[in-house]
Order: sequence, then C-alpha cells, then structure tokens
Amino acid sequence: MSDKLKRARKRGIVIGSLPTGERNKITDVHGVSVGHMTVQQGDINTGVTAILPHQGNVFIEKVIAASHVLNGFGKTMGTIQINELGTIETPILMTNTLSVGSGANGLIKYTLKNNPEIGRTTGTVNPIVTECNDMYLNDIRSMAITEEDVFTAIANAQLDFEEGAVGAGTGMKCFGLKGGIGSASRLIDIEGEGFTFGVLVLSNFGHLNDLVINGKKVGRSIAELELDITTEKDKGSIIVIVATDMPVTSRQLERIIKRCGVGLSRTGSKMGHNSGDIVIGFSTGNKVFHQPSSKKHQLTYFHEDEIDNAFQAVAEATEEAIINSMLTAKTTVGRDGNTLYSLTEYIDKIK
Amino acid sequence: MSDKLKRARKRGIVIGSLPTGERNKITDVHGVSVGHMTVQQGDINTGVTAILPHQGNVFIEKVIAASHVLNGFGKTMGTIQINELGTIETPILMTNTLSVGSGANGLIKYTLKNNPEIGRTTGTVNPIVTECNDMYLNDIRSMAITEEDVFTAIANAQLDFEEGAVGAGTGMKCFGLKGGIGSASRLIDIEGEGFTFGVLVLSNFGHLNDLVINGKKVGRSIAELELDITTEKDKGSIIVIVATDMPVTSRQLERIIKRCGVGLSRTGSKMGHNSGDIVIGFSTGNKVFHQPSSKKHQLTYFHEDEIDNAFQAVAEATEEAIINSMLTAKTTVGRDGNTLYSLTEYIDKIK
Amino acid sequence: MSDKLKRARKRGIVIGSLPTGERNKITDVHGVSVGHMTVQQGDINTGVTAILPHQGNVFIEKVIAASHVLNGFGKTMGTIQINELGTIETPILMTNTLSVGSGANGLIKYTLKNNPEIGRTTGTVNPIVTECNDMYLNDIRSMAITEEDVFTAIANAQLDFEEGAVGAGTGMKCFGLKGGIGSASRLIDIEGEGFTFGVLVLSNFGHLNDLVINGKKVGRSIAELELDITTEKDKGSIIVIVATDMPVTSRQLERIIKRCGVGLSRTGSKMGHNSGDIVIGFSTGNKVFHQPSSKKHQLTYFHEDEIDNAFQAVAEATEEAIINSMLTAKTTVGRDGNTLYSLTEYIDKIK
Amino acid sequence: MSDKLKRARKRGIVIGSLPTGERNKITDVHGVSVGHMTVQQGDINTGVTAILPHQGNVFIEKVIAASHVLNGFGKTMGTIQINELGTIETPILMTNTLSVGSGANGLIKYTLKNNPEIGRTTGTVNPIVTECNDMYLNDIRSMAITEEDVFTAIANAQLDFEEGAVGAGTGMKCFGLKGGIGSASRLIDIEGEGFTFGVLVLSNFGHLNDLVINGKKVGRSIAELELDITTEKDKGSIIVIVATDMPVTSRQLERIIKRCGVGLSRTGSKMGHNSGDIVIGFSTGNKVFHQPSSKKHQLTYFHEDEIDNAFQAVAEATEEAIINSMLTAKTTVGRDGNTLYSLTEYIDKIK
Repeated sequence: MSDKLKRARKRGIVIGSLPTGERNKITDVHGVSVGHMTVQQGDINTGVTAILPHQGNVFIEKVIAASHVLNGFGKTMGTIQINELGTIETPILMTNTLSVGSGANGLIKYTLKNNPEIGRTTGTVNPIVTECNDMYLNDIRSMAITEEDVFTAIANAQLDFEEGAVGAGTGMKCFGLKGGIGSASRLIDIEGEGFTFGVLVLSNFGHLNDLVINGKKVGRSIAELELDITTEKDKGSIIVIVATDMPVTSRQLERIIKRCGVGLSRTGSKMGHNSGDIVIGFSTGNKVFHQPSSKKHQLTYFHEDEIDNAFQAVAEATEEAIINSMLTAKTTVGRDGNTLYSLTEYIDKIK
Repeated sequence: MSDKLKRARKRGIVIGSLPTGERNKITDVHGVSVGHMTVQQGDINTGVTAILPHQGNVFIEKVIAASHVLNGFGKTMGTIQINELGTIETPILMTNTLSVGSGANGLIKYTLKNNPEIGRTTGTVNPIVTECNDMYLNDIRSMAITEEDVFTAIANAQLDFEEGAVGAGTGMKCFGLKGGIGSASRLIDIEGEGFTFGVLVLSNFGHLNDLVINGKKVGRSIAELELDITTEKDKGSIIVIVATDMPVTSRQLERIIKRCGVGLSRTGSKMGHNSGDIVIGFSTGNKVFHQPSSKKHQLTYFHEDEIDNAFQAVAEATEEAIINSMLTAKTTVGRDGNTLYSLTEYIDKIK
Repeated sequence: MSDKLKRARKRGIVIGSLPTGERNKITDVHGVSVGHMTVQQGDINTGVTAILPHQGNVFIEKVIAASHVLNGFGKTMGTIQINELGTIETPILMTNTLSVGSGANGLIKYTLKNNPEIGRTTGTVNPIVTECNDMYLNDIRSMAITEEDVFTAIANAQLDFEEGAVGAGTGMKCFGLKGGIGSASRLIDIEGEGFTFGVLVLSNFGHLNDLVINGKKVGRSIAELELDITTEKDKGSIIVIVATDMPVTSRQLERIIKRCGVGLSRTGSKMGHNSGDIVIGFSTGNKVFHQPSSKKHQLTYFHEDEIDNAFQAVAEATEEAIINSMLTAKTTVGRDGNTLYSLTEYIDKIK
Repeated sequence: MSDKLKRARKRGIVIGSLPTGERNKITDVHGVSVGHMTVQQGDINTGVTAILPHQGNVFIEKVIAASHVLNGFGKTMGTIQINELGTIETPILMTNTLSVGSGANGLIKYTLKNNPEIGRTTGTVNPIVTECNDMYLNDIRSMAITEEDVFTAIANAQLDFEEGAVGAGTGMKCFGLKGGIGSASRLIDIEGEGFTFGVLVLSNFGHLNDLVINGKKVGRSIAELELDITTEKDKGSIIVIVATDMPVTSRQLERIIKRCGVGLSRTGSKMGHNSGDIVIGFSTGNKVFHQPSSKKHQLTYFHEDEIDNAFQAVAEATEEAIINSMLTAKTTVGRDGNTLYSLTEYIDKIK
C-alpha cells in the first residue's frame, strides 16, 4: 500500500475506544483469511473476494453463523439456510451483482472437489455469495467473473490481505468517491478471557454530502471544494462480514451483527432505498460437525449480560472498516472513462 | 399424459370444496404460462421449469410478490429483495440444488437481452431461482443445467404444460415414490367479482408411511403392500408457487401464501429438517412499473375480511397440486439404476 | 371427568405413531404443572389458565423459549422479549382477550412478590399472557378477570389438571362446537435417551364444516345431522404451548414449535384471518440463571439431524390436544343464552 | 418551558438538512395530538403519554401502521397484530414497564366506551402500549399508574404538548442524565406535493460517555467535568413513534421507520443489550375502515424510488427528538433521593 493510501489510524483517526487487534483486520480472528482476485481489462473493473472462516474444510467443520438484512434491495445468496440452521459451510464470497451465479458455481465446484460425498451419500451445499453493483466503473453486463476467478480468490487467501480497490472492491463507489474493501478489528475482555471481533466491508453506498468521519462532516467540506464529483442518485450497497472467536449461539450472534448498522449510520449512511445492506457473521468459538461422532453436544456461550462489549466492538469496527475502505482505495478510471476519485485526494485539503 | 397417469379429479379424488379453474392449473390465472426443459442422458435426470407471471416484460412491468419460508434448509435465490420490495421482476425458475448458479446466469442473461438499459442507465436484476435436491435419480454433481436450458424452458412456456417427471421435476422424489411437477387452481368470488388462485409445486419430500390422500392414510397401505421402496432418510424439499389475479398488497399476499403450509401438512408432510420448503407468490392484480410516468399510484386491494376465501383456495390447491404431482409422475430409473416408482403403480391395489 | 367426556385415546382415536407420556398431557414433561381458575357468574363465562415451566422461581431460573406466530390477529404479550433473548421468566398465562391487562398485572405482582430485588437492584419482568376471544359465551366487555384470579390459577397448578370448558377454556368455541383446554404428549428417543414433548392448547377457532378428526371429515357429517349449530363467521384463535425436557437452543426450539401448525392444519384449520394463532414453547433441558455465578456456560443440544423426531412429536401432540379439547368440553350455555354444544353430543351419532 | 430548557434549534444545533414543520414536533402531522399525565408523589415519579393518530374514532377509522424492533429486551404490547394487519386501532400509550397492564386496561376501557359494538357484534381491540423502565427515579414496584391516568393523558391531548420530564418521561434517564419526551419533524416534497414526518421519543438509554450531539462527543467532555453522575450499567430503552401524512403501504412504512435506528445510532447509542428499543409508525395518508361500505379499496402510495426522502426525514427527526428530550428535561430528584441532572446543567460549560 502506498503511503498516500494509509489507513485511518495512521492518519490519527481513532474511532471508538476499544483496542484493535494486531493487524486491525478481520484476520485478527484466529484462522480467518481473505483472498482477492481482481479482474481488470478495458471496461471490465471488477473482482472476487473470499473470506475463509478457518483453514480446515468448512463443509465438514461448519461455523456458527447469522445474517441480518439492514436493507434488502440486494441479491445475496444463502441466507435462508443461515437463518434456519445457524451455520455456514463454505467460504463467503463477494463479487458484483450480476456475477452471483458464477460465484455460486465456483463455490459449489470448490466444495464438490473437496467433498466427494456430496450428492452421493450426503446432501448438497449452501454457497454464500454476496454482491454489490459496480456498474459505474465496470461493464457489469459482461458478467466477467468466471469460476476460475473464484478458485483463485480462495487460493489467494492470506492474513495480510489488501484493502481498497481490489478484488470485489475494484469497481465500487462509496459516498461518490472510490470505495471497496476495508477492514478493522476490536478486542474485548470477559472475565479475563480475550476475544476478537473482525469486520470486513465491501463499501458501495452513499452520497458525498453525507460522508462523516468520526463525527466530522467531511463530505460537505469536500463537496464545497470540488464540483466534478458525480452526485448521481445512490444505487449502492454495503456488505459487512463479521468474524469472531467469542463462543456464542446463533441468536446471540444475530444480535451482535445487527450493531453493524450502528457503525454504518455513523459514517453518514441512511441505508438508502437502492441498497442491499447485508451483514453476515460467523463465530469460530463453537464448531458444528457435518457428521458428528455423537449426537449430543455442548455449546459454549456467555451470559447475555456480557454481550454489550461485543455490540460496541462490532459498531466501532464497522465504522472504521468503512473509513479504511475509502482511505485505501485509489482513484480509478473505469468503463467509458467514468472516474471515481480517492478520498485521499481531498482529505488533506479540508480542515 | 397417458391415461394411467391421470390426475386426482379424474380418479374421483376431490380435495376441498371450492371450484377449480378451467385447466385446474396455475395457468388458469390469466397471463401465467409454464415451460419445461427436461435434461436426461445417462445418469443425468434433471431439468428446468420456468413460470412466467405474464406475457410482457416482467422487468419493466413487475408484479406484486411475497415469499414465505416453511423450512429453510434450502438454497432459493432472490427472496431478500422480494421481502424488501414486495415485487418480482423475472420469471421464476425451478431446478436442482447445485444448478442454482447456472439458473441465475440464464435468468440474468435472458433479462439483460430484453433490457439493454440494465447496468447502464438503470440498476441490476433480481433473479428468482428455486431448487430441490434430485440426487437420488440425478448425477447432481455434474451440474448439468446450462444457461441454454434456462432459455429453452422459458421459450417453452405455455398454458397446457405437462406435470409429473418433467422439467425440474424429472428427478424428484415424493413420499418415497416418484414426485415432480403438479398443479391445481381454485376460483373464489368476492362481491360478485371472480378471482383465480393457481398453485404449482415441485414435490420432493416425505416418507412413504406419511402419505395421506384427502384424509386417507394411503402411504401406510402401500408400505404394507411393498417392501422394495426406498425408505432412506428424507432429504427432500418442496417449492410452491402461487399465482393470483386478485389485487392484494404484498403483506396480504404473504398472509395468503402461508396457507400453502396447511395444504402441505394435510398430505402428511411434517416439513422435515432436511428440507427447503419455500413458497413464492405473485399477484397480477396490480402492476408496479420500473419507470412509472408518475410517482403517485393507486393500489387496489380488498378489505382484510375477504381474505379467508383466498386462504382456503391456496390451502386446497396446494394439497391437490402435490397429489397431482405424484399421480402424473411415471416410474423413473435414474443414476446407478436407482428407481422411483409411480404412485399409480399402487394406488389401485390398495383399498 | 364424566365418562361421556372421555379423551380421544379412550375412544380409540389414535393420532400418529409415537408413544404418549404417562398422562398424555403437557405435565408429562418433568416439572411442568397447570392450574385453572374458572370464572362463571351470570353472563360471565371465562377464566384463567396458568402453565408453570418448573416448580422453582422462574424469574431466577429462566427456561429456554421460543415463540411463533401462525396468524397474528392476536394480542399475546411478551413475545418481543422471547424472540430477542430466547427465554421466559414467568409462568405462561391464558385468558380472554380483554383481560390481557389484568393478566399482566397479576403476573407482575406474583413475580414482584417472589423477587423483591426487581425494580431495585435488578430490572423488570416480562409477563407472558396469551388470549383468545370468548365473547360468544362470555360478557367479555365486563373484563371480569382479576389479579386474584391469576394468583388462584397459579396456586392451583397441578399435574392432573382438567381439560375442556375450564379455566381460560370456559367460554371458548372450536369448530362451532364447545372448545377449550386440551393436552397431549409424545415420547421420543435419541441414542437411547428419552425425551418428552407436551402440548397444551386453548382452542377457539374454525368452522364446523372443516372439522377433521384423524383424517375423517367429521364436521361435514355433523353439519348434515344438525341445523341448529351457529355457523357465524369464525372470529377465533388458538394458543398452543409446547413444553419439552429435550435440551435445545432457542433456534432449534423455534423450528420445533413451528410444527404445531402441521397438527393444527390436520384438524381442518386454515388459520383463518380473524385468528390469533400463536405458539409459545419452552425447554427445561437447559436453565438460564438470572444472576449466574460465572459468565461462561455450556448449553447442551442435539445435532440438527435428530430434530425430526421432535417435529413429529409436536405435530402429533398438537393435533391430539385439539381433539381432546373438544372431546372433554361439555355443552355450555352462556351470555344471553348463547349455547355451544359438546362434540360428544354428536360424535356417536355419525358414522 | 423555561428559557434554560430550550430545544436544540434554539441553541443553534441544526441536525440534518431538511426543513422542519411549524412546531418541529410530531403534531406537525395533521390530526396528530399528544397528551401527558404526570404522576409524582413521594418516591413515585412516573406517568403516561398518549399519542392520538387523528381526532376521530381510531377503532372505526384505523391508520396504516408498522413496527420495528431495534432491540427486543422490552415489553411493548400490540405489535403482533400490527405486523399481521398493518394497522393500529387505538391511541399509542407510553408508560413505565410494570404499568403496561394498567395501560392496556385503560386503553381497552377507553375503546369499549366509544365502541359499544365491541365484544357484541364485532371482535375485540388491540391496545398499543409501549414502555421504558424508570426505576432509578420511580418506585416502579408500586405500579402507580391507574386506568384514570390513561383517560387523563388521552383527554389532555393537544398540539403544543410539553417535552422533557413529563408524562411517561417523568422518571426516565438518558445517557446518565435526565431523559424523557422529545420530538421533532421534517418536511419533504415529492413532485410538488408536501408531506410531514413527525417523531416523538421516550428516551431512557445510554452511557454518559457515549453521548454525541450533532457529531460532537459531548458526553466525554461532560464526563471529564463532573464525577458525580451515575455511571451504573445501562438498563434503559427507547421508544420511537413516527407519524406521517405521506400515503404509504405498511411495507413501505416499515422500511421508513427502520431508519429511526440511523438517528439513534448518531446520538451515541449502540442499542445496548438491556434495552427495549422499539419503533412504531403510522400514516394517516390512507384510512382503513373497520366496517367499510364496500370491500374493494384503493390505497395511494408513492413509487419506491421516492422513499429516500422519507428515510432521511425519519433519521434526522429521530436524532433531533432525542437531543430535544434531553435539553428540555429538568434536573429531577426521585426515589430514595436518586437524582438525574439536566443536560442543560453542563452543555454551556463545555467547549
């Protein structure tokens, strides 16, 4: 990452009061990794991002999960089963809206390859594919994402993944500026035991005027500076992925991930009509085995009174991840010469 | 349809008390048509079924819609947006579980072709793809469905569509016997005005012992006859599509389609754990235009007190559609010689 | 109970295939007790029924719970918190619709008395009050239920509680005949360990023509016999309470109690518009302490694959509990001479 | 209102960019009125607030409504039926948590008096009673609210109602300071037609450190000033009522009122665990008659693309209403000498 595209903390922007994890990324949650495949050629500016909940076979060793729809003008796949069973069994994919089908195909083939019993001696698989609409910079009608791109994104998964205009974030727009992938994390302590909450966002929403950074109405100031920025009607979305190692039930996790809306609201979003604002969360604190040796299990969880720390962690990390997604995203020229400027072009010009 | 595979009414099985439409199919709702593409080759026994809400451009002229999850162990796509906006904007597709991605791709391409403004001057499209798992008869791992199959199913749409082991129903199993596509309709009258409710099911659920036909425990009787029928654990599902020309709000429509569960329960289903039991309904009684000439609209609806007739219509038609799906489905030999017998092999042998 | 008012099993009506508990009542679940207070004087024919989840202090020792709305034209109190926290902390009350306020007051005072720390060093309490509309037999406008009646119902709690026209069931109407309180239970086995599911209903719904008993269209036959039975529009409801000792999460419990709709549908209900069809379930298999000594807990649960037995248990017990509520309810003359006849007046006259 | 307790705008605090209505209160929506009954004696510091949707008989002439649970640790009554039918048929009541029963009784009696047909020729009524826990200042265990208090609050309904420590707001606490009743409104324009959105809150949530006013971290600054303010664990809640004259469907209204969470988040709330954060909204733009002369109706609504203005209006008005609830609430000494200080004691002392 160039020095220009430095993250919020490096700029002295400190959101909230909880400590961050080592990388201040979703990968601070032990076992989580993130991979990108960026697809850029001519008018095509898009990609795939994959979040792996752990380094084993997620189909065999499922993780507790929950989903929450902040605004449902979106095409995310897989939430019906998350809501029913409270688990996920594949990596989580992010891509552009019209590539959800190819994303699903890639994720299914990846899972079939690793699990020859699927469709033979056991049932099928529920691919989790999320999306935002990158049509401003990307020729989205070309449906450019291939199954190979999905395999590559998964294979690229690592701890020190890039943020900004990369992977699924390549063509995204946020507050009229360049958006994309951003992440942050927070640490909490319960009775001396430490847990990590990590958030990764795909940001693609909002009007320039509405952008707020840590309470400051930065968007209005930029709007006064600059008249060239597109102010067309918002057609955007945001996907928020929450990871934690805190052992929770899926009901508790759903409560926790609802607080992503708190962080989102503080950046200036009103969760506009034209948006698919979707949150998916998972916890590695309890495993759910596809074929358990016994039928009776113990699920570890914390008393509900301890959940407030988790709420705060997720609210703070979401707010910071969004700001990071903008600060790390470079100015990008896309389809038909459409251009989205980096927030970093302006942030030092305003007071 | 061979005489052997005759529907319930032709056998004197009269479910409920409301009159049926002319064809006693979902296509009794004016404008609705249904097309199949059956894909059979070697171990592949699967297909696609498409339900077209009307004969115009559904993206431009959307229909009021609702969805309801009876049991969510399923992978149906598109319900998040139905729930948020109360409309659908594509045909509804049915296929096998691992072909949801290809189904989405086909539906997106079909819509892009007819709407060149998508991804340029307007947003994207929300494909509705439903599924059941046909792995017993079909080599589902081959992911055999292509985008071409989707186009063909849509192009095949007609009023007098086939039922049984056809289209998406080709490989399905119901109560341990052959299931598939079934349909029925009911007519109701409100203050002298007539409305039609049509139901189409993709049946793929249940244990033989549980099958009930119009109150009779037929499954138990068959189980006593015959020892060869597979009684492996139920891994099935049911998709129910409801169409009506009654003008309703999406909230009312959601209430109405919940009653598909009433009809389903009466056939002996307990909505087992391993099932994606999903209902999607639409009404052609009010149109929602993508780009309306004015912003203010009138939506016609009936006072809530009149809704009981609709509840009954949907409960009766769902029950009959399921029975029709079995009575019209022929004995089918599939993957690795797996065989599902037609209910009609037994129904005349029992008292 | 008079011999005339004998339950389904005593009449040879065997619903489903699972074994019943010792009493075939909700009190077969260890610790559960049920108490009635019947209030009858002149035009007043109503009452209160209380279900106690266990014999300790439910506020201190909460039980895992879930609620499910089959049809929401009802005034049940307390479900918002059940849905959020997955627990209940008071007995569950049943009464008439306009006495929900007094029911709440009684339940609050009962809880305050036993928990002097409420409102001082700890928060408040969430009373669970369910209701049906008994206006046909009861002068519901008199709001006859008092807080004392609530205390009495709770104090009356026992294992061998009465069914039929008693407690909250005193004035209820079911399928145009006399309804009220009914119960049933089922036993399941998982890996050699036995669990009990108990159901208690307050039945107050349905049209005579629709009544089905174990698959037989009994209502139609009665309607042919007798012309005097009121066939006015259904304004009824049903409340279903599910108890179990199977250890489950609140998410699993919600899945399980949804299957009450299966049993309900099989009795002929279409969950009519004018009904508040509400299910509340609890499990004593895991306790949740108000003030735990430690913050970290273990919750026992069974793998999701084992849940089908629970689905069947609940579906069967609900169907039987409804039939029991009618078979045990005597002919009752109420407000303004309005009369509801016992099903037992007719059941032996029809074939 | 004393000059000291002046509202946000009078202090130069301008939240958002939309214009306000004439009074900048919920009563800017034509027909809406608000009444208080304050109950204070010794340790009792509580009350009732009633919001009347219009000046007619709300049971006869219902209004379109929706509810939304931001956090469900609360005891609000009546939302099951709002969700099912999309209407409300009584005034909306606010009171303390343990007085919900008496609130319901009062509301039921008020409705019975005006509608002699209830319980005779028509069904019952669904009282809407919301609550927060005012135990810090109020002897909540005394359950001091009477049915008479409810009648008085309704009778007191007017356009220029008071804010702050009045009615249900008498004993409430917000961000560790004195909370209570607050209100604000916004005007929007669609194709030349003007509509009003009004919000009224009962504020009772939050930690002092978290208070943010229009982006400024005011709470932290106050916390640095003053060490005497209670910082005990948050046990609070917020009730938000939204009124509008914009014609909408209940589905659209639910979308709109979800944005109260946006405004709430911007004041520093994270919707803590111990809170019942509930929103109820209604629109007078379409009436739903209890006994309509015809069964077929027209419902006016705006195309979904126009809904963003409504989202913004509700987000802004909620944020301002909360700040108003604090700025208008005077320092109050309550139960056992417990004291909550007015925000106005500090706001001029900080920079």
